[in-house]
Parts: sequence; structure tokens; C-alpha cells
Amino acid sequence: MAVGSGTVGLRTVREANLGVVLRTIRESAPCSRAAVAAATGLNKTTVSSLVADLMARRLVRETGRTAQSGVGRPGVLLDLDDTSVAALGLEVNVDYLSVVAVDLVQRELTARHMPFDAREAGPQESARRIVAALREAAADPAVRGRTVVGAGIAVPGLVDAPSGIVRRAPNLGWSDFPLGGRADALGFPVRVDNDANLGAVAEYRVGSFAGTPDLVYVTGEVGIGAGVLTGGALLRGAGGFAGELGHLALDPGGPECSCGRRGCLEAMAGIGAILRDALPDLAPGRPLSGADVAALVDTAVGRAAAGDAVAVAALERAGNRLGRGLAALVNLVDPGLVLLGGYFVPMCPWLLPPCRTALAAGVFAPDAGGCRVEPSALGLSAAARGGAAGVIHALDSGALPLPEPADAP
Amino acid sequence: MAVGSGTVGLRTVREANLGVVLRTIRESAPCSRAAVAAATGLNKTTVSSLVADLMARRLVRETGRTAQSGVGRPGVLLDLDDTSVAALGLEVNVDYLSVVAVDLVQRELTARHMPFDAREAGPQESARRIVAALREAAADPAVRGRTVVGAGIAVPGLVDAPSGIVRRAPNLGWSDFPLGGRADALGFPVRVDNDANLGAVAEYRVGSFAGTPDLVYVTGEVGIGAGVLTGGALLRGAGGFAGELGHLALDPGGPECSCGRRGCLEAMAGIGAILRDALPDLAPGRPLSGADVAALVDTAVGRAAAGDAVAVAALERAGNRLGRGLAALVNLVDPGLVLLGGYFVPMCPWLLPPCRTALAAGVFAPDAGGCRVEPSALGLSAAARGGAAGVIHALDSGALPLPEPADAP
Repeated sequence: MAVGSGTVGLRTVREANLGVVLRTIRESAPCSRAAVAAATGLNKTTVSSLVADLMARRLVRETGRTAQSGVGRPGVLLDLDDTSVAALGLEVNVDYLSVVAVDLVQRELTARHMPFDAREAGPQESARRIVAALREAAADPAVRGRTVVGAGIAVPGLVDAPSGIVRRAPNLGWSDFPLGGRADALGFPVRVDNDANLGAVAEYRVGSFAGTPDLVYVTGEVGIGAGVLTGGALLRGAGGFAGELGHLALDPGGPECSCGRRGCLEAMAGIGAILRDALPDLAPGRPLSGADVAALVDTAVGRAAAGDAVAVAALERAGNRLGRGLAALVNLVDPGLVLLGGYFVPMCPWLLPPCRTALAAGVFAPDAGGCRVEPSALGLSAAARGGAAGVIHALDSGALPLPEPADAP
Repeated sequence: MAVGSGTVGLRTVREANLGVVLRTIRESAPCSRAAVAAATGLNKTTVSSLVADLMARRLVRETGRTAQSGVGRPGVLLDLDDTSVAALGLEVNVDYLSVVAVDLVQRELTARHMPFDAREAGPQESARRIVAALREAAADPAVRGRTVVGAGIAVPGLVDAPSGIVRRAPNLGWSDFPLGGRADALGFPVRVDNDANLGAVAEYRVGSFAGTPDLVYVTGEVGIGAGVLTGGALLRGAGGFAGELGHLALDPGGPECSCGRRGCLEAMAGIGAILRDALPDLAPGRPLSGADVAALVDTAVGRAAAGDAVAVAALERAGNRLGRGLAALVNLVDPGLVLLGGYFVPMCPWLLPPCRTALAAGVFAPDAGGCRVEPSALGLSAAARGGAAGVIHALDSGALPLPEPADAP
């Protein structure tokens, strides 16, 4: 399709309107063209033209049923076409790669969880593995044949999202690494963001408390980060660095942290700290990496479930520390809901009671400011799911190019 | 003017459009009607009608000059009419009432600062004094003859702004007090909010860094609170309780705080704590109140300026503690700019160097996340100024009723 320079502005408006109609159908499907016109304020002719365009792009389809009520000709009902596109999400963390693909209605098409030692691999080799994993996901039988509209990559550290540069990820040993640029050859847009931010996006879009506009997602990995959602939008801060819950100073005399400071929350209640405390006979003194983590978490949870006093005490101590850290967050941000993610999830039976007690004790507003703390239902794929969910949301908001019509040259 | 129920919706749209035109003239004055039409997308006839309405309400006036350029008839230039309305702001704090009145262009018309012991007076008597102070301000020679369009009241504590109820203000000894309702008889709308929130509004609207969309204002009173602005909007949180910086746990073994906990930031670096530390011979052991505070602050600053080692060490210690508290805020919220207000301002020469050092040491992002810490230029009237500034802003945004046209019955 030839687009003269004079029509670029109009085309942009049309793309935005396509996004508006797509979002409206998502929210009200099954619905008629007339209902879309009523909901958007666009006139019926425009809506018909936009719907035709979305159908040509295989994002919308007619259900074959008609609207029951109303005057005039019965309207054919529309729905999202969930058969044509896919969005990918990937998380790289200290000990794994997690990859997911979702369709237009955020349904999971495929998911893979691979042990991976990102610290040992280093940034260049990790980038190669990340690109390969995204290629494999795009070639997965459940995805092949669909148009991949984009991918979101989650990294545990400070990320400059617009440029795709990982500024500082001490638990991976990376700094100032242009990860986004390494994925240019994939043929679809790729966006890099902080793992906690994408976890919060996942909770907002597809989690157990989906739609809650004020919430915090806390990563439970070797590192601890917080993704803060206020009014349904990520709180990024002036420099994009908000949510560094793991580096809250909890105890100036505490253990050394990967960031070089002492007594940070993640040095006292991150998964590495918990495992060293809960499994003094098994956990290595060195920083945890690679395949160690998942197996050790299983062992610690197993021992706690069997009543092992050392393991139980370690988890309860960590819960108390988490609660003290969350109290600072709740005093400052008042999120209403905190979801504990990652490896914290299987530990929640022991973490949550002391965590909630410490939170209530540390929050100035009565009754912990009304803030609930709950386990995430998204497990270790939360950040990857958030990466994919963000891509689908970008389609709706006109922030990503839509797939070309099927009959385009 | 009789308004049939069928036209209420239209009238609301018109009020909103009046606000849009008012804001546009504020931002671009002096400007022609044609320029307003171009900036708003409203057609020229509509703009002319709205401008006529705003002129009848004495919010806009013609300057008498005409636009120099452009085709067609030269446009008469418009400006805000700063002679007809006033907005009031009042802060009640542990040791004073501060009252200001501003005009439509946020210029200060009058300001009064009165020693007042709010804790000793109790909530009922304080409410009477607050209402009396607002009445006096409305009757001030600089205000009399203007239409008072509203007032904003600042309180150091948890405030439920929509209902006007002060939930918890431990430094005043108030809880669940319906302050907003006590001001109903004033004849203009009154809104109650947290003092730090209104300080942040004042910084954003009229402070030295006005227009900075991400900033935090920190109150420096007996209590410490933070008003957090992100993207130009107050971060209120799920329950409206965000910004409780003063009750961040700094040292579990620290001194007792007014909230009943130990080692909160305000118990270690609030003005009461600083004075007890800097003036061991003068500051009372009991909680500070009433007229004590201002005089003791003067003495402490005077001694520090004269090189008194005890006073200097106390201020520097407080600066370090403030920096540690701000590090938590910057790690979580990444505000880019923190303004220290109230009694912290005269102490800044001693507070700021150790504060900035502790901040840089405690923030995970490099270079303190790029966050600057500066003294507020608004002194003890910041929160009152913010209350008044919020009223003027509410006019522009259509959130407050505009004054009736001068020729209305």
C-alpha cells in the first residue's frame, strides 16, 4: 500500500481509531457495530469502515449471531478473532528463562520455563539465548501461522525502557547493556522493561485481582523488586527507576547486598537470604545462581511443611522482614493490594502471617491502611505474562502497529 | 437564571468549556479569540460566546490591544481579569495558623501567620478559630469586594479529602474530626487536605520549580509528611493515605513517636526531635506545642550560625536521618526533586550536605537516581498557598462553580 506523505497524519488517526474500536469490542463482545458506535461516539459509517479494516487484519470477526433487541435491522454481533495473532513475553532471571505466548484475548498459547544461569552466561550469550528462545516460541506449533505482533522482555534490574538498555542488574552482573538492540533482527517490535513492572502489568491484566487499579507486585527471586500500579498506570518515576523495594535499608548492620550496601531488604529476605537461613546445611555461601535455586526452594518448602523448626523459623523471620519493608511502601504509596510473586508464592503459608503482622505494626494509617497482602497466582511466569500482556494492550491503545490486512501485497 | 432539568447536561458541558477557555487564556495571555479557538479546537462562534460569558463573570477582560499578525480583522487581545475573585488557603499546624488569599493569577493578596496551639485548643475550638480566620481573610481590605470562590484547608495528618474528615492527626491530638462540615456556613466551597499534599500543589503551581511534574514536598514541622506529585498529579494511593514519610521506621530502638511506635523518621528528625537535640538546655522534654516552636527554631539556627558545636552536630545528624528516610522514598517513588519545607528551610545550610550524602549512599539507582534535594522557597505558608492554588486550579478545570455573571439577579 502506497502512503503519500500527506496522508500520514490521517493514517495515524485511523490507526488510533482502529485501536479504540478494537478495545471497545474487547470490552463489550459480543456486540453490534451500532453498539460500538454508541460506546465510542464515532458515527456508524466510520465504525463499519473500521470494523471492515479490523476484519481484514483478522483481529475481529462476526460471530454469526445477531443482536436480539433494538430498532431497525438486527445487528450482526462482533467478537475478537483470537486465531490470528500472538504476543510473546520473556523473563530472564538469575536462574531461569521463562517464555510465554498469548493470543488476542490474553489466553496462554504456550509457555516454557528453562533453567538458565544468566550470571554465568554473561550479557552477550544471554542475549543470544533470549533471541533464540523468542524465535523458538514464534515457531512453536501453537503459535506458528499467527502474526507475532511484538514481545516484551523482563529483566531484574534498572531498565531504561524507551532505549531498551539494562542500566544495572547486579544479580545478573549486567550494567549498561543494550539488550533491546540485540533483538532487532527478530522482525517484530521488542520492548524491555523491569521484571517487577511487568509482573504488575500481568496482575492488572490477567491476575486473580485483574482490574484493580492500585496494586503492587513484588518479585520473589534472588532479588526483590516492586512494580507499582497507581490508577491503572505504572509508577515509573522521574527517571524510570521507581519500585526498588529490594534496596530499602532494613538494618544498617545487616548482611552485604549484591548492590554493595549492607542490610538491604533483598539481602535479608530475598530468596538467597531465605535459603541460606532455612537450609544451613545445603545452601552455598556464595551468591546463588543457575539451577540451584528452584531445587533449594522445593527443599526449604518441603522441610517447612514437615515441621522442620529451622526452616519454619527462617521463613517466618523473612515474612517479618518483608512486612517491615512493605510497611515503608504502604506508608509512602498506599497501594491497597500487594501481591507476592515468584518463589515467595510456595513460601506464603509461612511468610504471610508474620508479614501481615509486621505490616500492620509499621503502617501509620489504621488497619494497615486497608492494604491486603496476597500470593500471586501467576507463579514464575508473571513477568513474562506481563511482557506479552503489555504487547496486546499496546495494540488496543494504538501504540503498536496492527498486522497488515491479509490481502495486502 | 432558570435551568430546566433537561438542560443540566448541556450546562455542565458549557461550564467545562468555560474552564477550558479560562485555562487557555491563562496559558497564552495576551491572546485573541482566534488563538483560543485554534488552541482548543472549539469553533470561533463558540469561543466568542464563552469569552463573553467569562467577561460577564469578570474572569476575563480585553486588554485594549490587538494582535499584530494574521489575516482578517485584527483580534482584540484577552487577559485574565485579576481584580474580581479571590481564593483562600489556610494551614493549621501544631503551633500556628497560616492564612493566605490569592487572586486569579495566583498573586498573593494577603497573608497572615498566627501563633496558635491547636493541640491545647482541641478540634472544636480549633475549627471555630479556622472559620473565624477564613472570615477575617475574606473581609481583609485586599480581598473585600472580590468574590471568594473557595478555600483549601491544610491539616498535618491523614485526611479523607472527599468528606473533609480528619482521620488521624496525632501531633494535633485529633482523630475522626469532620472539619470540612464545620466550615459549611462560610458561603463558599471548602476542601480539607493533608498539609504535605497541599505543599506539593503549591510547589507545582507557584514554587521555585513550578511546573516540575514529578516532585515531593516534605513538611518540616513537628511532624514530617510528604506530598508526592507524579506526572503533575498527587499520588494519593488507594485509601488517600500515601506520603506518610514521617512514620517510616528508621531505628526500631529509637525514641517514641507521637503515633505510638518507636524510631519513626519524625521522632528522629522532626522539628521537635531536632530542637531537643540541638538545645538540650532549652527544649522541653514534653511534646512541643504552641508558640515554643518558632522561637526555639530561631535559637537553634542562631546557635548553629554562631558555630555552637552541639547545635551544628544536631542539625547534621538530623540531615543524615532525613537523607536515609528520603532514600527509601527515592528508591520507591523516584521523584527527581525533593523540596524541604517549613522549619527545615532555615536549617538547610546544615541539613542539606549530610542529607544529600546519605541519600546518595542509600539510593540504588546511580547518582541518587538523579534526585535533587532543595529548600522550598515558600516557607511556612506553603500548605496554605497550596490550598488557595488548588482552588484557582479547580476553576480552570471546571471542578468548581464559576462566580455568577455580574448582572445576574
